[in-house]
Order: sequence, then C-alpha cells, then structure tokens
Amino acid sequence: MAEEGKFKYFTPDEVSKMSVEELSKQRVIYGIEDKPPMGEAILLGVQHYLTMFGATFIIPVLTASAVGFDGVDTARLISLMFFVSGITTILQTTWGNKLPIVQGGTFSFLPPMFVITGAVLARPDATSDLAMQELTGAIIAASFFEIVIGFSGLIGEMRRILGPITIAPTIAMIGLALYNTGFSWLMEDWRVGMVTLIAMIVYSQFLRSKNRAFLLFPVLLAILTGYAFAWIITLAGVVSQGDAGYVSTQVLENSPWIAVPKPFMWGMPKFTLSFILGMVAGYVASMIESVGDYMAAARMSGAPIPSKSRISRGIGMEGVGCLIAGIFGTGNGTTSYSENIGAIGLTKVGSRYVIQMAAIVMLLLGIFGKFGGFFGGMPNPVVGAMYCALFGMIAAVGISNLQFVDLNSSRNLFIVGFAFFMGLSVPYWANTVTIAEGLPLWQETLEDIVLTIAKTGMAVAAICAGVLDNTVPGTKEERGLLAWEDVASDT
Amino acid sequence: MAEEGKFKYFTPDEVSKMSVEELSKQRVIYGIEDKPPMGEAILLGVQHYLTMFGATFIIPVLTASAVGFDGVDTARLISLMFFVSGITTILQTTWGNKLPIVQGGTFSFLPPMFVITGAVLARPDATSDLAMQELTGAIIAASFFEIVIGFSGLIGEMRRILGPITIAPTIAMIGLALYNTGFSWLMEDWRVGMVTLIAMIVYSQFLRSKNRAFLLFPVLLAILTGYAFAWIITLAGVVSQGDAGYVSTQVLENSPWIAVPKPFMWGMPKFTLSFILGMVAGYVASMIESVGDYMAAARMSGAPIPSKSRISRGIGMEGVGCLIAGIFGTGNGTTSYSENIGAIGLTKVGSRYVIQMAAIVMLLLGIFGKFGGFFGGMPNPVVGAMYCALFGMIAAVGISNLQFVDLNSSRNLFIVGFAFFMGLSVPYWANTVTIAEGLPLWQETLEDIVLTIAKTGMAVAAICAGVLDNTVPGTKEERGLLAWEDVASDT
Repeated sequence: MAEEGKFKYFTPDEVSKMSVEELSKQRVIYGIEDKPPMGEAILLGVQHYLTMFGATFIIPVLTASAVGFDGVDTARLISLMFFVSGITTILQTTWGNKLPIVQGGTFSFLPPMFVITGAVLARPDATSDLAMQELTGAIIAASFFEIVIGFSGLIGEMRRILGPITIAPTIAMIGLALYNTGFSWLMEDWRVGMVTLIAMIVYSQFLRSKNRAFLLFPVLLAILTGYAFAWIITLAGVVSQGDAGYVSTQVLENSPWIAVPKPFMWGMPKFTLSFILGMVAGYVASMIESVGDYMAAARMSGAPIPSKSRISRGIGMEGVGCLIAGIFGTGNGTTSYSENIGAIGLTKVGSRYVIQMAAIVMLLLGIFGKFGGFFGGMPNPVVGAMYCALFGMIAAVGISNLQFVDLNSSRNLFIVGFAFFMGLSVPYWANTVTIAEGLPLWQETLEDIVLTIAKTGMAVAAICAGVLDNTVPGTKEERGLLAWEDVASDT
Repeated sequence: MAEEGKFKYFTPDEVSKMSVEELSKQRVIYGIEDKPPMGEAILLGVQHYLTMFGATFIIPVLTASAVGFDGVDTARLISLMFFVSGITTILQTTWGNKLPIVQGGTFSFLPPMFVITGAVLARPDATSDLAMQELTGAIIAASFFEIVIGFSGLIGEMRRILGPITIAPTIAMIGLALYNTGFSWLMEDWRVGMVTLIAMIVYSQFLRSKNRAFLLFPVLLAILTGYAFAWIITLAGVVSQGDAGYVSTQVLENSPWIAVPKPFMWGMPKFTLSFILGMVAGYVASMIESVGDYMAAARMSGAPIPSKSRISRGIGMEGVGCLIAGIFGTGNGTTSYSENIGAIGLTKVGSRYVIQMAAIVMLLLGIFGKFGGFFGGMPNPVVGAMYCALFGMIAAVGISNLQFVDLNSSRNLFIVGFAFFMGLSVPYWANTVTIAEGLPLWQETLEDIVLTIAKTGMAVAAICAGVLDNTVPGTKEERGLLAWEDVASDT
C-alpha cells in the first residue's frame, strides 16, 4: 500500500485557495461530510456519472441481448438502469450506509441472469417479455433475502467470516466466469472490435498521463471511437444490415425524447423457485463484494472502518434498491460500484454530497429517452472489446485483495487456487448436465437448484473459499484478517 | 515474506549433533554444496521422489488418455517419464544450472499436447501411435528452439523483460486453462471422485500438522485412498467393467517386471510445422516458468541470485532434456519442478547431492515396470479429483508472484486482469473457429499457427502481459522488478 501521508482535512474555503500542485499532494481534498460549492459539486457529479457509465451501460445491453430485445427495448432498459441508479444512490447516501458510494447494476447478477433467461428461452412458448417476467420475479423475491440479512444485522456478524481469501476469488470470478462473452463478441467483426480494444488500451494506459480527458474517461472515449468507426464503415458500405459491425439508426429514431419509467413495464413478475434460489447466489456474491467496497470507500475518503450497524444498514438498503430495480424491471439489481471507489482515489474527492449530485444527473438522463437510444444501436464487437478490458479489471480488483494475505503459506495457496479452479471447472461440468426426465418433483427441483448454483462460478468460488478459509487451521495474520482491517481502518 | 533470520551454514557434522528443535529453527539445514551422510541422502531423495510423484504421474496419465492408450501403454509411459526425469535431473544438477531442482514433465506442454492429439485423432487414418509420432516430432523439433535460446545466452537477456506481472498470469493459466479436465472427470463417478477430493483436502489441510506423513505425502495418500475405494466398490460389484469407477487388474498383470526404455518406441517422429509452432508456445511458457523457479530455488536454499550465465546454461540444458524426452517418447518435455522447490522450503534441505540421489531413485523405479503398471489402472475420477487440487495450486503459485507487485496501481491491475481474461476468452473463441476449405497453402498454414497459439491460454496470457508490461509506462518499483530481485538475491 502506498501510504502518502496522514489525513488532514481542509474546509471548502481553504481548498479553494490551494494551488493544483498543493491539492495533488493531499490524500483527500473533500471528505465524506464536506460540501464543495454547488457548481463544482455538479461538475464532479457529472464526472462520477461518466466514470460509472461503462458498467451501468454494459449491464442492460448484456441483459437486453440475453433476452433478445430489439434496439428500442434495449434503449428503454438502459434509461431505466440509470433512472434506478439515481433513486437508489440517493437512498443509500442519505439513509443507508451514508458512504460516498454510487449504486448501480451489478455484474454478480449476470451469471444467474444468463442461466434464467437461457432456461426460459429454451421453452416452446418463450418470449423476451416472459424472460423478463421470470427474471424480475427472481430478483424481487430474492431481494427480501438481502433486506432481511441486512436490516436484521446478520451481515454485520457474517463480516467476521469473510476474509480477503474468500473475497478475492469471489470478485475475480465475477469477471473471469464471463470469458465466453468477451473475445467471441469482439471477433464478430474483428475490425470494429480491434479498433475499440486498441483505443481502450491506448487511451487508458498510454495517454492517461498526457491529458485529463484520457485519465478520467478512457472507457467512454474508447466506446465513442469504436462506435464512430462502425458508423464510418457502415456509411462507406463496407458492412451491410445483418453484419455484426453494422450500425442501425432505427433505434435512435424510434426512441422517445422523454420516457418516464413505469413499474412492471414488461408484465407482472413470475416466481419460479429454482430461479429465485439461483438469484440468491448472485445476491450472496453482491453482498460479499459490497462489504469489501464499504471498507475500501471508507479508506479512500478518510473515514474510520465502517461499524457493524453501518454495514448492516447499507446491505439492507441495497436489498431495498434491488426490490426497486425489480419493480421497475431493469432485469438486474443494484449494488455498490467499485468503479466509483476507484474514481474517489483518482479525484481525491470523497464527498457524499458530490455523489448525491451524480445521482440527480443519472435520474435526469435516465428520463431523457434519446440518450439511451443513441447507445442502443451500438454493435456487439464494441461491447465485446469493452468486456475484455472491464471484466479483466474486475478479475484483477478481486485478486488485489490478496495483497493482505501471506502468499507464501501453502494453506492460503491451496484455498485460493482451489476456489479459482473450481469456479471455472464446476460450471463447465454443470453446463454439460441435463436432468433426467420423470423424476419426482422434489428431486427435480433439488437438482435444478444445485445445478443453477453450480453454473454460477462466483458462487462456487465463494462456497469453496468461504468454507475452507474458515475451517482449515491458520493464523489471523496468515489469513490477512489483521492487515486487512488495519488498512480499512487506516490507523 | 516471513523472514526467519539470516542464513547460517553448518557442516554435516554439526547438523548431526543438533536437536530437532534446534534444526527446525534454521532457515537452511543443508545448503547447495553440502553432502549429508549417504543413508540420510538416499532417504531424503526418496522423499523428493514422492513429493514430485503426483505431477510426474499425472502428466503421462493425461497424455496417455488424450492419445487413447490402453492401460499397458499408459503404464509404459509412466515408467518412461520417471526414467527420463532421472536422466535429465542428473544432467541439470551436475552440468546445467547446478541448482537443487528436480527435472520432470511439464504442465506447459499439456495445452499444445491436447491441441495436437485432438487434431491428429480427428483424421480418418488416426491411431494412438500416429498421435505420439506427431507429438514427439513437435517436441523434438521445438527443443532446438530452447537449446538455442538457452546456450546462446539469449534467455539471460530476456530475463530483463520478464517481470512478475508477466510470470504471474502465465503460470496461473497453466492450471486455470485446464478447467475442462478437472471436475468433469471427477464427476464421471462422483463417489470415487469425492472420496479422493475430500481425502486430498483433509490430508493436506487438516492433518498435516498432526503427522509427518500427511505433511509430506498428502497427494500420494489421497491417490491411494481414492484408488483403494475404487478397488473396494469394484470387488463389491457396485461398479462393473466400463463404469468410470471400475478398476481393471489387466494392466498390472500385463506389465513386465523390468522395462528398459528404447528410443522411438512409438515409431519414428513426424514433423508438422503448425504443431511445432504450437509446441514452441509451450516451450516459451516453460522457459518463463523455469527462470522464476531458478530464482525461487536459489532463494530457498540460500544461494545468491542466479547469474545470467547460470540461467542460460540451465535453460539450454532443459532444452537438451526435452530432446531426450522426445527421443524416448514421453509425449512431454522436462522442466524445473515447482513442487520440489516447495519441498525444499518444507524440509529445509537444499542440497544438490540429495537431488542427485532422488534422480537415481527415479531412474531405477522407471525401469521397474510393475511399478507403473500398478498405477496404470487408476480410474479417471481419482485423476480428476487430483487435478482440482493440483491445477488450482499451480494457479495460486502463479498468482503468488503478484506479492512483489503494487496491486493498487491501476496500470498493473489492467495488465494482470487483461492477461487473465484473454487467457480464457481467446481460447474459448479459437475453439469455435474452423479454417475455411480451399485456402492457399500459405494462408491455411498461417491461420493454423495463429489458432494453435490462440488455443493455448498460457501463451495468450504471456503475450498480452509481456507486451503491455514492457510498453505501458510504469516504474520498476510499481512493476515489482526491484522487490522481486531483492527477494531472489535475499539481501
């Protein structure tokens, strides 16, 4: 950990008098309860919006593609996601954990989402709306699991058994388990895909020290570059309708200027037990990830280690956020955003007020339909290229939790390696299994549940690492529990 | 890094007078050039043999299964592998790098082995012997690549561009990329598989502090447990011939008592350009891994950081070892064994002489045919269970190289994560691609080569990480180059 000096707080007035050079040396410019001047706060909020844009945009695109939505519905789903992010971020920062964390769609729900939509669409009577209804039902029903685990204070207790050895493979598997949707999509049109990928690498890794725009918005700029390139080859007639690199303008034209979200817009939710339990696996991973995020966010913004009650209140409110997301039909939940925690580290602005401003920006842009419409026609290879960089980043952020762990202990190596390998190997097996016909109902349901969890790499990794890390003998120091809490509390 | 004190050498005479308690406090009991008394050296050698048994046994089993060998040929291949390990270990420790490292079959060759055997067996005229001939040809031809890179001193120069950021995902991918052969094999008979897996976890993680046998031989004991369980359910008639859990005694009965290996026993090698180039990818990964092993082995046995010429001589000799392995037809090469470096850490015996004794044990048991025959009938689920633990361990050993790296640097996170994700995502794509028919020969060959490399996750990871780590701006400290060399030289 690069320790750049002790925290020292300044009033907004003092900050306004400091030079850029002086500011850049401070660990935190605005702390959690500081309120920058309104104009600056809004600009900082827009910046947070753009930082989280990539992920908040990818999740509905991926969901829409899995359920087979056309461009118009994809656009609506994107707008919805931003709208719900705005509402839940305001709830969380004002009444929940009161930390400077943005709430948004979660990658943890993607694996069960793929499993559920895949199963529904395999039925003879399948429609996209039906898939959304089943997905929504699973999200809504399972949200009460998170609400109870949170507000009852159970998660505060669970905190004790979740060390970095469990968190690392769980978060890493969120990214790694999606290996089948990255490079394959990119290669659907290798020109568009490679332009986007190279732009992403060049902007984020080579140009970031040259220009502030590349430092803060590499994902957005790479998307725009790839999208622009696809427009060019579309207009030049190199690709035609039906090709993966072709850009259709229909979506943008069909999008309404203003779209006010309505509850249950895809139809009333349907509730299927095995889907709900599969989704619970996603909630478990999301909760584990969020507890880690709270610690990191507190550390970044110079606050003490979050108390059990703050953690419990935050997780409970995330459950409420997922319930709201389910009611509005985003096909996903909400969770704390690691991207924004990174942005706090980058901008040294850890103010709750700034995050509330960002939430208002998201809410407003979520209602502006043309906005989502513009990105609704984006070709698959652009998305695939983004995945290669972003899913990798999630994997690495997961792995980075191991910096607190003794990586020369064969106990730790065994547990971490086992969780990684099983997180990939068990889903590979589960996807080859078909449940025998004519079984008694209880047995079919049970096998269905086990298989749904077994197909979710991150749940498998969490179970393997969680059970072993809490049973195999090892010292607190070896397991990284001391170092982890030390860093989180920043004493 | 747990630093337990400075090195202090003792003569064998002094050591013999120390109590177990005194010995256990020493960092190194026998250094590189120390010679323990003959009897003790042989026993320590047998111990090394058993420590490396798992991997040296798995590789020929996996190779035999990939080419479709029957039990008798599988038994011959196992014996061969031990025999060749013995020869090459003697060469390496006496004239090569002169470090206390055992040479044995390498996991790095498994991905290209699967690709080559898969391609050959898809041909209409395919036989197991033909697959071995193609495999052998690729290994022999590509071995000159390693011999030249080594003895020319080029690898000593390459050392400079191979930091922990490249080594970590490369080694990790050796294990992770094999996710499709782990749990699926275990589940071929879940009873036998689970008994073996649980035995492995209990012996290695829960019982190791209770008993020296479990500390040193958890893999061997777990194999014997799973194998014994399979024997029991076979004799009890729970499984019958053709079931995955069934043990056939035919192999043991058919094995000769004494089997002296002969060169080219599967027929004269065949040379196909794309296979050779695919195998080169395996050699590259093996070389990268070995350089890391030399540093670790030197560190464990209290020697200074290996010089460029020692590294070059070692890699050159590994190439010679691979050539010998190819000539004897093991279907694999030889490389330095991470398992044995771990064993040095465990036993605190880093003597070159002990490793030479271990080599002689391997040579003799390699000629004793019944020995390989006993393990030739081992059921698949036992092997699958071992993979889940051992491939995970390789992944974790790879990841552990990141302890020298700044895991809060977004540059490092991007590169590491990108290499991990692409190492899984690119092979997934490559396996869905078929080369169009009727292409010009040069284009078909080129596409063939690119696809062979793209199917090898660890080569993809090495290329992604190697290129980015050496081009994206970053300080030596951030990249872990300083800390890595510090630890290796142990100053």
